[in-house]
Parts: sequence; structure tokens; C-alpha cells
Amino acid sequence: VKAVSPKRCGAKADFLSALLQKVRRSVRRHHLLPAGSPVLVGLSGGSDSVALTVVLQELSRHADFRVVALAHLNHQIRTAAPGDEAFCRAFAERRGLPILVESLDVRGYAATQRYSIEDAARRLRYDFLTRAAAQAGATLIAVGHTQDDQAETFLLKLVRGAGLTGLGGIYPRRGAVVRPLLDVSRMELQAFLHDRGETWVDDETNQDLANPRNRIRHRVLPELELAYGGAARAIARAAGLAGEDGQWLDDLAERRYAELCIRRDQTLEIDCAGLIADPGPIRRRVLFRALRSASGGREIGLDHIEAALAVATGDAAAADLPGSRLELRRGKLVLLEQDAAS
Amino acid sequence: VKAVSPKRCGAKADFLSALLQKVRRSVRRHHLLPAGSPVLVGLSGGSDSVALTVVLQELSRHADFRVVALAHLNHQIRTAAPGDEAFCRAFAERRGLPILVESLDVRGYAATQRYSIEDAARRLRYDFLTRAAAQAGATLIAVGHTQDDQAETFLLKLVRGAGLTGLGGIYPRRGAVVRPLLDVSRMELQAFLHDRGETWVDDETNQDLANPRNRIRHRVLPELELAYGGAARAIARAAGLAGEDGQWLDDLAERRYAELCIRRDQTLEIDCAGLIADPGPIRRRVLFRALRSASGGREIGLDHIEAALAVATGDAAAADLPGSRLELRRGKLVLLEQDAAS
Repeated sequence: VKAVSPKRCGAKADFLSALLQKVRRSVRRHHLLPAGSPVLVGLSGGSDSVALTVVLQELSRHADFRVVALAHLNHQIRTAAPGDEAFCRAFAERRGLPILVESLDVRGYAATQRYSIEDAARRLRYDFLTRAAAQAGATLIAVGHTQDDQAETFLLKLVRGAGLTGLGGIYPRRGAVVRPLLDVSRMELQAFLHDRGETWVDDETNQDLANPRNRIRHRVLPELELAYGGAARAIARAAGLAGEDGQWLDDLAERRYAELCIRRDQTLEIDCAGLIADPGPIRRRVLFRALRSASGGREIGLDHIEAALAVATGDAAAADLPGSRLELRRGKLVLLEQDAAS
Repeated sequence: VKAVSPKRCGAKADFLSALLQKVRRSVRRHHLLPAGSPVLVGLSGGSDSVALTVVLQELSRHADFRVVALAHLNHQIRTAAPGDEAFCRAFAERRGLPILVESLDVRGYAATQRYSIEDAARRLRYDFLTRAAAQAGATLIAVGHTQDDQAETFLLKLVRGAGLTGLGGIYPRRGAVVRPLLDVSRMELQAFLHDRGETWVDDETNQDLANPRNRIRHRVLPELELAYGGAARAIARAAGLAGEDGQWLDDLAERRYAELCIRRDQTLEIDCAGLIADPGPIRRRVLFRALRSASGGREIGLDHIEAALAVATGDAAAADLPGSRLELRRGKLVLLEQDAAS
């Protein structure tokens, strides 16, 4: 366990109340912690989740929710893992909270399920947190994603070509999982912990630049900050707003899809005239849903949407798409699943 | 004038036709060059605009539009400016096209109008291109923005906090101005020019890293490409799609604004119940329009929107905003312009 001590920060009292106020504002805006909620906090031992625990405990004194337990997953990946677990147990005792700990073979799970280590760790972590919440009698699971994670995730989605279904980053709330720290930077949290006399553990795997997220964190975001001060905060805010826009457009498109599309066995019939008359953002999302329904998990890209649109507008007779073929038949776009098409 | 020769590129014939096909596809998708259009091309002498001229001349052989003239603005900023002008005149002659040239004091205009040099140059350039198009009898003005410009502009808007009104980049078409190269990279264009035996001039001011755009071009985008290959292309595409989404949401909000807001002298009355019932993306944009109408050109940020929303939901009695004050009076949000409020 490497204990880290951050730099000091000026104008302390004002700053600290500003931090708590910021979190309280996020909590209120997104209705993260309804009155009476028993909350479980996911704890890695890093500065974000340690700060989340302390912040929520302090906020709960003036609000109607309770932190009822902590939960730590030992990923068995890093050499420091046993030390991290010991740190978390000691921290829980210091904060007067029960802690649920599980140890899982993330590497083995990734190998058998053919997930990346990052994907496997995320799946196992949320499964574990769900079990732990049930065990602790918590209705909500708070996790420590920050403004920095939000900016990184947005940029990562952006370069991976997620523009098609709308940008957006990490959601403040998804099911039972809530993220109260999305408007706060890691640096603010570390200054806060320093003031409270709390330490944390550092994740040395976060330094590896071969990992795209780490390159974005350590190389891209600092360069963006040099280009324009406050870049990470601006990106995190844009991510939140783009997420809101995208979610609403997706909802509209879902309703429109139900109006325009009829499934018959292995084909999907789409009302072509209706689709063509829709505005671009809705048309694109309806087609995306349609194509994805037949793709068997294969990725649908902008090129596929455009090929499908060409059929709809009569510029092409048919389009071969992942898992399906699209044809225009008497005013209907007919999407034939691959088995049916051959 | 520094003449530049790019690296060679393999699989030539396929590659070249792919480039022209790509441009033709953008032209078709965004209806950039309607049949019969006489087109003026804005020419800086850089690789993008030189390639644009050649590409459009070649495409016009198989299509129903004509390149009728070139237009070059001498900005009088760079020491190479006279050389650039000479290069453009020689290029025009070689291509068999008339060229309109003007020389303007961009620096002086920026100083008197208090614009940045970049802003001043853009305003003067588009004014000049509009005059030149009228003189040449052109109905459209083609300019050479590429996929790289699109990605840079998106990132620049992003870090500057443009998320509030929706992200998005450069529009393929705005009034008489069309941008047929937004789906093509600068590198593809330079390889194309090399093949055609054309040279171009380099803009050495583009190297200055104190300029945010240049830092994004030379530092941020290369790091993003290392994080994820094809990053610039993915960003450019996301920018196009986000622009489409944003434009439609803005249109919806404009109509909703007309329904919800009534202007009376120096106040704006907003139907509060209607506003609250609207989905977040519309509500935010309606409030942005309302606040901007009273801000006298001052910037409206997310904090202002949230302060206004707090008044709407009854969480605050009033909000002081740039150029205005917002109060809730008998179910109406009343925005008082600053003179009227005092």
C-alpha cells in the first residue's frame, strides 16, 4: 500500500464548503439520494472512493439518507491487491462502517468469457456491488466517478466512434447505481482528504500508456488544459449535457421505432415514407435500432446507416448489412435476417 | 513561398478514385452543389484549397456544376503573403481559371474592431468571398475545410464550453458557403495533389503552440491517434452527427420559445408550468435563448441556466443574471432587463 499525501490547498474553509455544496447540488439536481435511502459505497481504496465515503457521511448529517456499509472487491490483479484490501478494512473501522469484501479471479473470468480485463473487472464489480447492497439492506450503490473520469470517458467514447448513437459520458444515475462526484475534480477530492487527515492507495496500473484511457488521462487531457484552461471541467459538463440530449433523442426514436417497424418472423418491415419524412436525428436512430436488431451483436456503424438510407431513398436497390440484407419492396423497407435472406 | 512535396502513397488508382468518390458522396448527402451551380473557390494557396480546386474541376466533368473563378485574400499578416498571392495567381492560370484578389489590412481591422486576429481574418475573408462570388456570377462559395479542421473545431468548441447549446463542428453548408472536403483528411488531399503534380504553400503561423487550435492540431490529436487509431476521423464524424442533433433540437426549442415566451417592453414573460413540463434538452435551450436575449452579448453559461431553473422550480426566489434579473410572479417567470430591474 502506497500512502499518498497531496499538496496543500489555500482558502481552506471556503473551499471545503464549496466542495460539499457542489456534491449536494449534483445530488439534488439528479435526485441521487431520495429521503430515507440506505446507501452502500463501493470502495477501491483510491482517493475517489475514500473521499466519496467521507463526503457522504458528512452530508448525511444534514440530510435524510444513511451510509450503511462499504464494499470492496479484491480483483487479484495487482500485486498491491492484498494491501489495498487491508487498507479498506482499516478505513472502514476508522469510519465506523461495516465492510463487505469479496475476492474474485478477474483474470480467469476475462479469459473464459473473452472479455478485456477492464470489461471483466467492471462486470464482476457491479455484480458484486449488487449482491453486497442486498446483503447490507441498501437500496442505492454509490460509486466514486469524478469529473476527470467523466471527461476521460467522453473522449474515449468519442475516439472510438460512439458519435452515432449520441455522445455523452457516465450517467449520474443508472438503476440502483448513483455517482454523486461527477461535478468534482480528483484534485479537489484529494485536497479535501488531506484536510480530513485521510490517506488513500494509488493504483500503479493506471500509469500504463498502452491503455487508451491512461493515455487520455496522462497525455491528452493535460495538453487540452494547456490549449484551454478548465478543459476537463468543460468536457465533463458537455458530456453531461450531451448525455441528456442523447437520452431524450433515444427515447423519441424508441417510440418512433414502435410506430414505423413491424416484425414478421425473420424480417422487419419499416414504413419507408414515414422514415424518410422524419428529421435526421430520429431517422438515424430508428435505422440504428432496426439494423442492430438483426446484427447478432455485431457493430453497426455510420456506413451501414448510410447504405440503408440509400435503399430508402431509392439510390440503391439493396444493402448487405451485418447479419441482414435490406431491400425496398412496395414502399416498405424489408430487413431480412441473414438466414432468411440466403 | 515554401513549396512542399508530400510522401508517396501506395495503391494509387484505387485510392484516387476513393477520394473523388468520398467527396462526391459528401456533395450528394448534403446537397452541396445543385445542378447548374456556378461555383467560386476560396483559395489560400494551402494544400486544402488547392486540392479543393482540382477535385471540383475533376468532379465537374461528370456533373452539372462549374468552377467559374478562384478568389484569394491577401491578409497582409505573414511575411510570405506576397509570395502566396503570386503562387495563387500562377496556379489559377495553370488551371485556366480567372482569379479575384484583394489585399486587406486584417491586423488594423482586428485592432479597431477589437476582434482577435483569427476572428477578424474570418470575417473579412467571408465578406470578401461574398463580394467576389457576386462579381464572378457564382451562386456558391466552396471552401476547403477538411476532416482535420472538423475534428480540431469540435475539440476547440468542446474545451471552450460550447456544450450548452449542443456540440457540433463546421457545417457542410451555411448559406452560399459549401464545404465538400469535410469527410477527407489533409493527408489524403496532399497525396492526391502529389499525384496530380501540384504543389502548395505552407502556412508557418500554423506552428505556434500558443494558439489553442495549433496545440490541438499538433499535440492533442496526435496523442488521441496514439490512444486510438482513426481518432480524428471518428471525432469529425461525431461532430457532424452532433451538429445534426443540435441543429434539430435548436429548431424545436425555437418553436417552443415562441409558444412559451412573450416580450413586453423590457421584460420577457415565460410560461413557467409549460417550461417545467418540457424535457431537459428543450427546457435548457429555451432558457438559454431567453437569457441571451437580455444579456447584451455577455456569455450565458450552464450556471446561469441552473440559477434560472432554481427560480422556476421554486428553489430560489430570484436570480441575478447577465444583464437581467429573473423572478417568479403569479406562475410566470419574469425576466427583467437590468435597466428595468433597478
